[in-house]
Amino acid sequence: MNVEKLDAWWRAANYVSVGQIYLRDNPLLRTPLRREDVKERLLGHWGTTPGLNFIYAHLNRVIAERQQEMLFITGPGHGGPANVANAWLEGTYSEIYSAITPNEAGLKELFKQFSYPGGIPSHAAPETPGSINEGGELGYSLAHAYGAVFDNPQLIAACVIGDGEAETGPLAASWHSNSFLDAKNDGAVLPILHLNGYKIANPTVLSRIPEAQLEQLMRGYGYDPHFVTVADPRATDQAHRDFASALDACVNRIGEIQAAAREEQRQTEEHPAWPMIVLRSPKGWTGPEIVDGDQVEGTWRAHQVPLSGIHDDDAHLRQLEEWMRSYKPGELFTDEGLLDEAIAEQAPAGDLRMSATPYANGGRLLEDLRLPAYADHAVVVDRPGQEKASPMATAGGYLRELITLNPENFRLFGPDETASNRLQDVYEVTDKVWQQRIDDVDEHLARSGRVMEVLSEHLCQGWLEGYLLTGRHGVFNCYEAFVHIVDSMFNQHAKWLKVHQDLPWRQPVASLNYMLSSHVWQQDHNGFSHQDPGFIDHVVNKKADVIRVYLPPDANTMLAVTEHCLQTRDRVNVIVTGKQPTMTWLGPEEARLHFERGIGVWDFAGRETEGEEPDAVLGCAGDVPTGEVIAAAKLLKEALPLLKVRVVNVVDLMRLQDSSEHPHGLPARSFDTLFTRDRPVIFAYHGYPWLIHRLTYRRTNHSNIHVRGYKEEGTTTTPFDMAMMNQIDRYQLAMDVIDRVPSLRSTQAEIRQHFQDERQRAWQYTRDNGKDIDAVTGWLLEESSPDDAS
Amino acid sequence: MNVEKLDAWWRAANYVSVGQIYLRDNPLLRTPLRREDVKERLLGHWGTTPGLNFIYAHLNRVIAERQQEMLFITGPGHGGPANVANAWLEGTYSEIYSAITPNEAGLKELFKQFSYPGGIPSHAAPETPGSINEGGELGYSLAHAYGAVFDNPQLIAACVIGDGEAETGPLAASWHSNSFLDAKNDGAVLPILHLNGYKIANPTVLSRIPEAQLEQLMRGYGYDPHFVTVADPRATDQAHRDFASALDACVNRIGEIQAAAREEQRQTEEHPAWPMIVLRSPKGWTGPEIVDGDQVEGTWRAHQVPLSGIHDDDAHLRQLEEWMRSYKPGELFTDEGLLDEAIAEQAPAGDLRMSATPYANGGRLLEDLRLPAYADHAVVVDRPGQEKASPMATAGGYLRELITLNPENFRLFGPDETASNRLQDVYEVTDKVWQQRIDDVDEHLARSGRVMEVLSEHLCQGWLEGYLLTGRHGVFNCYEAFVHIVDSMFNQHAKWLKVHQDLPWRQPVASLNYMLSSHVWQQDHNGFSHQDPGFIDHVVNKKADVIRVYLPPDANTMLAVTEHCLQTRDRVNVIVTGKQPTMTWLGPEEARLHFERGIGVWDFAGRETEGEEPDAVLGCAGDVPTGEVIAAAKLLKEALPLLKVRVVNVVDLMRLQDSSEHPHGLPARSFDTLFTRDRPVIFAYHGYPWLIHRLTYRRTNHSNIHVRGYKEEGTTTTPFDMAMMNQIDRYQLAMDVIDRVPSLRSTQAEIRQHFQDERQRAWQYTRDNGKDIDAVTGWLLEESSPDDAS
Repeated sequence: MNVEKLDAWWRAANYVSVGQIYLRDNPLLRTPLRREDVKERLLGHWGTTPGLNFIYAHLNRVIAERQQEMLFITGPGHGGPANVANAWLEGTYSEIYSAITPNEAGLKELFKQFSYPGGIPSHAAPETPGSINEGGELGYSLAHAYGAVFDNPQLIAACVIGDGEAETGPLAASWHSNSFLDAKNDGAVLPILHLNGYKIANPTVLSRIPEAQLEQLMRGYGYDPHFVTVADPRATDQAHRDFASALDACVNRIGEIQAAAREEQRQTEEHPAWPMIVLRSPKGWTGPEIVDGDQVEGTWRAHQVPLSGIHDDDAHLRQLEEWMRSYKPGELFTDEGLLDEAIAEQAPAGDLRMSATPYANGGRLLEDLRLPAYADHAVVVDRPGQEKASPMATAGGYLRELITLNPENFRLFGPDETASNRLQDVYEVTDKVWQQRIDDVDEHLARSGRVMEVLSEHLCQGWLEGYLLTGRHGVFNCYEAFVHIVDSMFNQHAKWLKVHQDLPWRQPVASLNYMLSSHVWQQDHNGFSHQDPGFIDHVVNKKADVIRVYLPPDANTMLAVTEHCLQTRDRVNVIVTGKQPTMTWLGPEEARLHFERGIGVWDFAGRETEGEEPDAVLGCAGDVPTGEVIAAAKLLKEALPLLKVRVVNVVDLMRLQDSSEHPHGLPARSFDTLFTRDRPVIFAYHGYPWLIHRLTYRRTNHSNIHVRGYKEEGTTTTPFDMAMMNQIDRYQLAMDVIDRVPSLRSTQAEIRQHFQDERQRAWQYTRDNGKDIDAVTGWLLEESSPDDAS
Repeated sequence: MNVEKLDAWWRAANYVSVGQIYLRDNPLLRTPLRREDVKERLLGHWGTTPGLNFIYAHLNRVIAERQQEMLFITGPGHGGPANVANAWLEGTYSEIYSAITPNEAGLKELFKQFSYPGGIPSHAAPETPGSINEGGELGYSLAHAYGAVFDNPQLIAACVIGDGEAETGPLAASWHSNSFLDAKNDGAVLPILHLNGYKIANPTVLSRIPEAQLEQLMRGYGYDPHFVTVADPRATDQAHRDFASALDACVNRIGEIQAAAREEQRQTEEHPAWPMIVLRSPKGWTGPEIVDGDQVEGTWRAHQVPLSGIHDDDAHLRQLEEWMRSYKPGELFTDEGLLDEAIAEQAPAGDLRMSATPYANGGRLLEDLRLPAYADHAVVVDRPGQEKASPMATAGGYLRELITLNPENFRLFGPDETASNRLQDVYEVTDKVWQQRIDDVDEHLARSGRVMEVLSEHLCQGWLEGYLLTGRHGVFNCYEAFVHIVDSMFNQHAKWLKVHQDLPWRQPVASLNYMLSSHVWQQDHNGFSHQDPGFIDHVVNKKADVIRVYLPPDANTMLAVTEHCLQTRDRVNVIVTGKQPTMTWLGPEEARLHFERGIGVWDFAGRETEGEEPDAVLGCAGDVPTGEVIAAAKLLKEALPLLKVRVVNVVDLMRLQDSSEHPHGLPARSFDTLFTRDRPVIFAYHGYPWLIHRLTYRRTNHSNIHVRGYKEEGTTTTPFDMAMMNQIDRYQLAMDVIDRVPSLRSTQAEIRQHFQDERQRAWQYTRDNGKDIDAVTGWLLEESSPDDAS
């Protein structure tokens, strides 16, 4: 190891980092620094940056020496200047962004764009070469790192964890990811806990608890910590030697663990303590030690811009110049502003550069999934509504075969709910990953497998994001209500994809697929706390190019939706459907066609006269509302022989929007054809009813659309009782039609009263006997004639 | 300690728990169990229940012996049967719910209602006496426990943590709460980590890592663990003795720590390791050991209903009877079904019963806040838009005095953002709580104080919920975008309040107040990842009775909103406003009046002719949109001297809804008066624009409302650039008016082009120079005459 050259790289990276925060001109300090060289508004964050640069330089040595594939994850917030500086020094930045040349002119542009209107953010972001982790919202770095190395046995993810970030819940849970990492078939994560002591304005917990306690904590999490403490910030040689020694020890130990798992008889009982590093170094290390008499280096005052007011304070201007010159730019860069050759040659080459690794641009590694034959898994349907099948279980059978066909690049994630959500067929061909003790009584647990189960939605989401962004495929199955736990993680991923799509150098990655079940209408076991269909509302706020929402009404449609979503790229697909056996309305090919259209008239359920407008339209989206609408149509058809009623089912929710607002939106004329221009529309929707208004408020017939949905009424009860409490039940819908068709309203009071009475009777029965509607009325379509089907 | 009596209580609680899951009749098994005694649908969860009952019985002994005030927090999911059983045995259940008498008839009703349509949920819930923690969504028990004991030095919160729950991020972060608990002025939390080995369908991480590692983990978290392991499930006497001994040791140790902190010279450097218990006992302990040849007790199979199919399987029916009789109900209950006197007398009396403690019904303890004088903090305003003040900093001054006036029952929570959000004035009178090392360089850190800062939104929310539900007051200040991290926690709290409001025995508690700042339009430092105004959309899905949303446009309005929210009960108040100095539009009394109305015409900003309708209405909600609307109105007034333009500002967002939909909704006629029935309305909104449509779609003039808002475009840039990117800037709004007023559209192309050119010029300037709009055009209202004000 050449400490001097390594230190030179670090100085260069620090110099380029400081330049980004401060300079708009004179990037190599060829002349004394003038006020006009400094940006007018100083925005950016220095505090965490020198530590990141330090670690990066050392990782580069290891990569180059060992030709080790490595991915760098920047956990600390506002670490962007470091990633960008190193990417520029490695040449990657200029290869990707040709305007930012690897010379003085490019350096000037690199400096100027940082934290500047229309420029680049101060966090590691999609724009940042080598990054798969957005450093704005903290807490997900370690989960991303684990997701990245699953099924990548040759990869080490070096994950720098900020001590601020370490206080978050998701990060705290992520340490336990080692209970799910298989040393044989997965790569390794090297956590580097970077204790620089402060977050924005406070000390951090992990930097202030006694070191012995911190060591116990890390050992308790299952790691073997190597402590590197920078006692004297000026003794940089010592710091380099200490860190290099710890790093070598860790990488060697990773090799030993992997070799033991891969080459010898596996000791399945043993759970190795994986190495990790605790680096204690001053916040703002190498920056101004004291400013205006206040200690800055090593304190929270180094968090953002340590020297401010440069334009009004010559002393600060001089201190800035002194600081920048302390890195000796003259030794680092040639006259043209190129990085000195001797320094540059330390970096790894080509794709081994962490700024250029394909693992951080996963689309480069992505392979299409081999898909099962749709027909093999579809439910045969002679007539609509004769056979029950669970949409989720049907998808489970499909996923079982998908896993068989794709044993290395697909995983299924769930918070201890995969079987509860009825996907348990997958266990016929794979297992749940588990590295701790396995007892005789346990089922489907193994060291390796395709299913990841942990009682943390954060970990499921974080692992999956890491897995997808490194070029693989996956599904996250979750209880509908509790997916809100990752609302914010979804936000950040959707934002990542939005920016990523606009960057030509970022290759498309597989979509993030949510399968949400155990939904609001099926809460026999749980109740009010488990009732929240609002994730859809949350999702549709994000860019239309990124998000899709599907509400398959039956098993075959679910299958068609699943098959489609697994083939898409750069999207977030949200699928919501039931796990209980429910009527299958469409045959295999009908279902596929219905899914492709996304919306359609279900002739078998309604009754129309050719060439005439219906008297009313019953719209539906979601499995339970669809069942209630079909039952309501049947009640109406039986009671009112002359009524023309149309049933429209929506499987692709974005079809309701206009084509100008969403790529899947329906053109105005098509919408008007389906929903008419002036007839009453009673729409039964799976979620909060106002979402349908928000999606359709520009439609011609909007003022006639009356929506029923979940209005936050519920408890532990039957699906039918739930429908009653929220007035989305068949009887209510039938009464709604009578109330809104003028000719019926005035003449059919008796029939309306009949529905009302039946409703009351059914409700009383279900409440008295704890039974669901099937037991109350029998299945309403039982006596439908085959002619009803289409 | 009388082990026999203690065991009898445990058996009684287990009996009453099993009864809830299974029986609808024959509650005391007076006759052999018949099929018809058993509920038709068996729903409920046995697994965690016997362990909870065991702990509860032991805590009762300690409470009775020491007259110790104690709060029981049920962390494990589906623990409801245990809480309900103990509340019934203690008599509390019958005191609260008079239909559930403390005898055989009541027991039958108690059994029947559980997990039954219209009955009670299987989680601890608002309906459950003694609970402040909903057991449906897991992970918040320990944070709630800490929140409950802050400023309650006499209280111990016994917090049972499930080993499934322990895998969640929020719970993992919560262990570190001891770094924020002051032994002198706060009470104590006694965590009881209950390892029963399994969650729904998988083993748990903490139950399977080696015990030595688990001990290191707990010590690393800063606790001194006492392990109690039930090696032989049948050796219950041994289990009782072991647990009692551990519990006594823990409570004694808590006393020692508190005495040292309270009575002697405080050792501020010392951070005591608080005691905690790790209880390892079989899942479904005392339930069926083997069913149909499969091991059930001690496995995941005991999670729900261990014996199913009772109606079709006589062997199961007999096994159920045997199981229930194993608790010897004849010894536990009198002939009338009353709990045996000797067993009953073990329980604490009155409010010391954990099911009856006022800490779990915090409204009983709630005292009104003493409020500062509004006028002392308001900004003096001679004319609208002449002086700048930060709305958040103004609130900060008010909170400073509030803290002085209320030193014991108000806390301010924030994820390391209190100063960043400009509330730092509070540090003039209080400190941030911190129990770890305090260095000389640190500022405003102390062992006790009113400000809680930790980099975890989950902890801030969880602590505050615990603090509020035990009868105190608080504010959570947070970056707007990252409050989504607690979307799901908000959901559960809003659901809690909705149910709580309907329970006459639950007294009103203080509202949960969010102050959200560093919002979407002010992202000079951060960027796209920090831009998300969707929390409002999320919040408005919940019950109208519970939620309020305020968007104060300036400092004085912020003050009026703050003053109001601190006095409300049983609500969630969301306040979103800026932290940067911004124009103050309204004087102190005007602002208060405007807030009380919630919406109003701003005459000084618009221009109208008495008795005539305006040509267009400019609506606004939010501080930045309000500024842009006022600037747009000025541009229009100057360019088009005959134009009549009205400016309507909305501070209480719920005013936009109809009065039938929300208690704060505006009646239709008032809305029409403000927004006219047919004139174009250009509405500039702080958040996603469609929310305004969702709130107003039933309004007369809805089809003429054109909304500008955040449409997910952004980066690290100036507020003006942000406004431009999302087309909510003054020039765009002015052009929108021209485009939508028919008489202007056809005649004023030249003026429109002028706005377009100015827009381009301003944008170019801000992008080229990194400056905000003030520097570009000067403040537009500078030359307003005093007559413009009203």
